[in-house]
Amino acid sequence: MKLASQAEDFPRWYQDVIAKAELAENGPVRGTMVIRPYGYSLWEAMQSEVDARIKAAGAENAYFPLFIPQSYLEKEAEHVEGFSPELAVVTHGGGKQLEEPVIVRPTSETVINASFAKWVQGHRDLPLLVNQWANVVRWEMRPRIFLRTSEFLWQEGHTAHATQQQARDYAVKILYEVYQDFMEQVLAIPVYVGLKSKFEAFPGAIGSLCCEAMMLDGKALQMATSHELGQNFSRMFNITFLDQNSQEQHVWQTSWGCSTRMVGGLIMVHGDSNGLRVPPVLAPIQVVILIVREGEGVAACAEKLRQELAELLGGNRVRIDDNTDASFGRRSTDWELKGVPLRLELGPRDVAEGVGVLVRRDLAGDKAAAKVAVPLAELPTQIVSTLAQQQQDMLSQATSWRDSRTQEAATPSEAVEIAQTGFARIPWDVIAEQGEESIAAHAVTVRCLQREDGSLPESSDEPNLVALVARSY
Amino acid sequence: MKLASQAEDFPRWYQDVIAKAELAENGPVRGTMVIRPYGYSLWEAMQSEVDARIKAAGAENAYFPLFIPQSYLEKEAEHVEGFSPELAVVTHGGGKQLEEPVIVRPTSETVINASFAKWVQGHRDLPLLVNQWANVVRWEMRPRIFLRTSEFLWQEGHTAHATQQQARDYAVKILYEVYQDFMEQVLAIPVYVGLKSKFEAFPGAIGSLCCEAMMLDGKALQMATSHELGQNFSRMFNITFLDQNSQEQHVWQTSWGCSTRMVGGLIMVHGDSNGLRVPPVLAPIQVVILIVREGEGVAACAEKLRQELAELLGGNRVRIDDNTDASFGRRSTDWELKGVPLRLELGPRDVAEGVGVLVRRDLAGDKAAAKVAVPLAELPTQIVSTLAQQQQDMLSQATSWRDSRTQEAATPSEAVEIAQTGFARIPWDVIAEQGEESIAAHAVTVRCLQREDGSLPESSDEPNLVALVARSY
Repeated sequence: MKLASQAEDFPRWYQDVIAKAELAENGPVRGTMVIRPYGYSLWEAMQSEVDARIKAAGAENAYFPLFIPQSYLEKEAEHVEGFSPELAVVTHGGGKQLEEPVIVRPTSETVINASFAKWVQGHRDLPLLVNQWANVVRWEMRPRIFLRTSEFLWQEGHTAHATQQQARDYAVKILYEVYQDFMEQVLAIPVYVGLKSKFEAFPGAIGSLCCEAMMLDGKALQMATSHELGQNFSRMFNITFLDQNSQEQHVWQTSWGCSTRMVGGLIMVHGDSNGLRVPPVLAPIQVVILIVREGEGVAACAEKLRQELAELLGGNRVRIDDNTDASFGRRSTDWELKGVPLRLELGPRDVAEGVGVLVRRDLAGDKAAAKVAVPLAELPTQIVSTLAQQQQDMLSQATSWRDSRTQEAATPSEAVEIAQTGFARIPWDVIAEQGEESIAAHAVTVRCLQREDGSLPESSDEPNLVALVARSY
Repeated sequence: MKLASQAEDFPRWYQDVIAKAELAENGPVRGTMVIRPYGYSLWEAMQSEVDARIKAAGAENAYFPLFIPQSYLEKEAEHVEGFSPELAVVTHGGGKQLEEPVIVRPTSETVINASFAKWVQGHRDLPLLVNQWANVVRWEMRPRIFLRTSEFLWQEGHTAHATQQQARDYAVKILYEVYQDFMEQVLAIPVYVGLKSKFEAFPGAIGSLCCEAMMLDGKALQMATSHELGQNFSRMFNITFLDQNSQEQHVWQTSWGCSTRMVGGLIMVHGDSNGLRVPPVLAPIQVVILIVREGEGVAACAEKLRQELAELLGGNRVRIDDNTDASFGRRSTDWELKGVPLRLELGPRDVAEGVGVLVRRDLAGDKAAAKVAVPLAELPTQIVSTLAQQQQDMLSQATSWRDSRTQEAATPSEAVEIAQTGFARIPWDVIAEQGEESIAAHAVTVRCLQREDGSLPESSDEPNLVALVARSY
C-alpha cells in the first residue's frame, strides 16, 4: 500500500496521494470528480482565504445561472471559438426538446454581462465589482483529477469600470492582492506573475495576467488568471453609462478566477514520499494529538491540550486521534498521508514524564530534526511558534526549488532543453510571436511575459521583455 | 415607485420587494434566476449559520458531480418516477453526441450512493455523515423567483447508518437541531415540525420529516425536509458493511435539505409595506449609519461609532451611508426596502447636541415607537441590546401570526374553508389517506402530521394523529 515513487513515476505518485489521502476520486461520468470530505476541507479553507481577499478588494458575491442561451455565447466571436470544443449542451428539459438548446456555463462572462447591461446606468454605478463561487463545465478529452476535469469549482470575478486604466488597475490589484498574496502567504507556493502572450490569452480578452508556479516534476501550473476584457463584451451586450459629461460610453471590464486546480498545485508543490504536506495557515487540521496507548491521565491530558490550543489557534483545527484499536504505525502513516502539519504523540509514559513528542510533517525527510520531546506546559506556545516556522520554511523550500528550476536561455532550442526540467527565461523577441508554434511542437509554451525586473509589462509589444517558458499542465 | 399593496396583491408585492430591494431577477433561460449581491449576502448568512449547525451535528462537507448517468437515476423506481418530469438532459458534450445522455442533478442521492458503496466496508465506517452545498436543476413549468426556480442553490445531507433506529434518530436530530433551531433562532420564523403523509413524501423515502411555516398571505411554505430512506438506495447501489458478527448488512440512510427558497420565506414572513425586514441575527448589515447632512464632526463621529460597533457586534456588519448627493428620503426608503434592522441618523445638529436618532426597522408600522434619540456615549450598548430585542420581537410577532392563522377543523370541508387563510388542524383519520385527493381538488394539501402534543409520530399509521392542512407554495 505504499505510494509510487515521486521521482520515478510522478503522475502515478500524484494519483496515489489523491487516493490514499482520501482527497478525491473519479465520478461516474467521464472527466468528473468526487471531492471527498478531506479534499473538500482543503478547498473550503482556500475559499475562505480567497473570499476574504476578494471582499477586501471591494467585490461582492452574487450568483448567476448555470444555463446560458446558446445565442449569448455566440455574441463574442473569439469567446465562442475558444470554448466551443468544450461545451456541454442541454437539449431536453422537463420532458420536452427545448426550442433553443442551452449551454452549461464554461465561464459566465456572457450571462453576467447581460445583467450588467441592466445594472449599469450612470457613472455612479461604476465600478461594479462582482464575484461568483460556482461550478463550471468544460468537456475534457484528457481529464486529470483536480487539474483538468469536465466540471470544476472556482470563483470568477467580473467587473465594469469607467475607464480602461481603472479596469487595468483592478485586474492588476486582483493579481497581486488576491492571488499572489494568497498563493505565497497561505499556500506557501511562490508564483511568477506576468502577462500571457496573445497566443495564450483568454478567448475574448485584450490582455491576460497570470500566476505561474513550478511543480516538483519540473512542469509549470497556471494557478490563477486576471483578464482585461477591454470593451469586447460591453459592446456585444451594450453595457453603457452616461459619463460626467452626459456622453454615452461603453464600460471597460475585467474577469479573473482561480479553481479547484489549486488543490492539484498544492499536492505537486508540497507533496513528498509520505504523501501530502499542508502548510499550517491553510491546514483544516493543524495539529493531531495522537494517543499512542491509553493509560492513566492520557485522555484528560489530550483534551486539556486540545482546548488550550483551540483557544490559541482559533477555531477547531486540533484533532484527537484516540482510535487505539488501530496500530500506532498505521495511524501515523495516515496522518502523514493527509499532511497534517504537526503530530503530537502522547502515551502513558509521556504523561508520567510530563512531556509530549512533537513531530513536524514538513521535515519528514529528516527524522532526527522532525521529532522533539517538549514539556507539557510548554507545548501550547511551542506549537504556535512551530506552526509559524513551518509556514515560513515551506515557502522558503518551495522558492528555492522554483529558483533552482529557473534558468536563462539564449535560443529557442536552449529554452526547450531547459524546459524539460523547469522554467527557461529567454528574451521575448528571440521567441517572437511566430516562434511560439515551434516550441509548442515540443510541448513547451510561453507561460508568461515579464519585464527584466519581474514587473508586469503594459503589453506584449514592450521592448526588452523576458518570456518564461516551460512544459505545463 | 411604491410597492404594490401587500394586502391587495401579495404576489405582486412579493415581486416588487425582490426587484426594489435588489435581491434577484430572472435569468435569460426561463425559470432561472440571478441572485444579486444583496440577495446573495442573505443566502451567505443563511449558509454560514446552517453550515455551523450541520458541522456541529457531525457531518462533513464534500462535493459530488453535477452530471449523473441516466442509468443511475433509473435504479430506484419511485425516485426516477418522481423526478422524470423535471429533468434537464445533456445530450452533447465536447462537440459530439454522447453515447449515454447525462442528467443534470435534480438531487444527488444516486451519485452520492455510488460513492458510499465504495467508502463503506465495515461497521467502523459508520455512521457516514456527508453534506454538500450545490446547485440543482428541476425544470419548472410555473417558476416563481426563490420559491420555484429551474436552478436553485441548496445543501443536501446524505448519511449511512448501521441500524434503522440510528438513521431515524439522525433524521430527527437534523430536523430539530439544524433546521428548526436555525429557522426560529436565526430567521425568526416559527415552524411546525411533522411527518409528511405518504402521498406527500420524497420519492424514494420511507418517511419524510419537514418544517412548515405560515406566510403573511395565509399560505404554508415548506422550509426544509429530512428524509428516512430506509434501505431503498442501499439495496440498489449495494451499500453493505460487515456488522460486528461479520454478517453482511445493507446500510440505513437519510437525506435532508434546505434551499434558496428560504429567502422567499424570509420575505413572505417578515416583509411589510415598506419592503423587507431582516432579523438582526441573520442581517449581513445590522446597522446603517445614515449621515443626514455633512457638517463638522459628523464623518469622524460616524467612523468612531462604526469601529466601536464592529468590535461589539463582531465582523463588519455596520455600514456608513454618506452619499449625501442623494436625498435623505430616498436613502431612508432604500435601506428600509433592504430591511436593515437599525438605522442611525446622524447630522450636524445631532452631533452638536451629542445624540443620534435610532430607528427600528421592525417597528416601521409604528413611527412613534420606532424612533428614539440616544446620547452618543450610550449608542453602542443601546444598539446591541436593541438588536437582541428586535430578534425576539420578530419571532414573537411571527409566532402570534402563525398561531392566529391555525384553527381546528372537524371535517374536510371545514378544513378547506380554514385553509383559505391559514393552517387547519384536523384529525388525520378524518382525512384518511384516500381523502387527500378530495382536498387537493381545492388546492389544499396535508402539510404534515403531528401527535396531539405537537411531537413527531413514528409513522402515519399511529392512532390519534393531527393533520395540518393548508394551501402552499
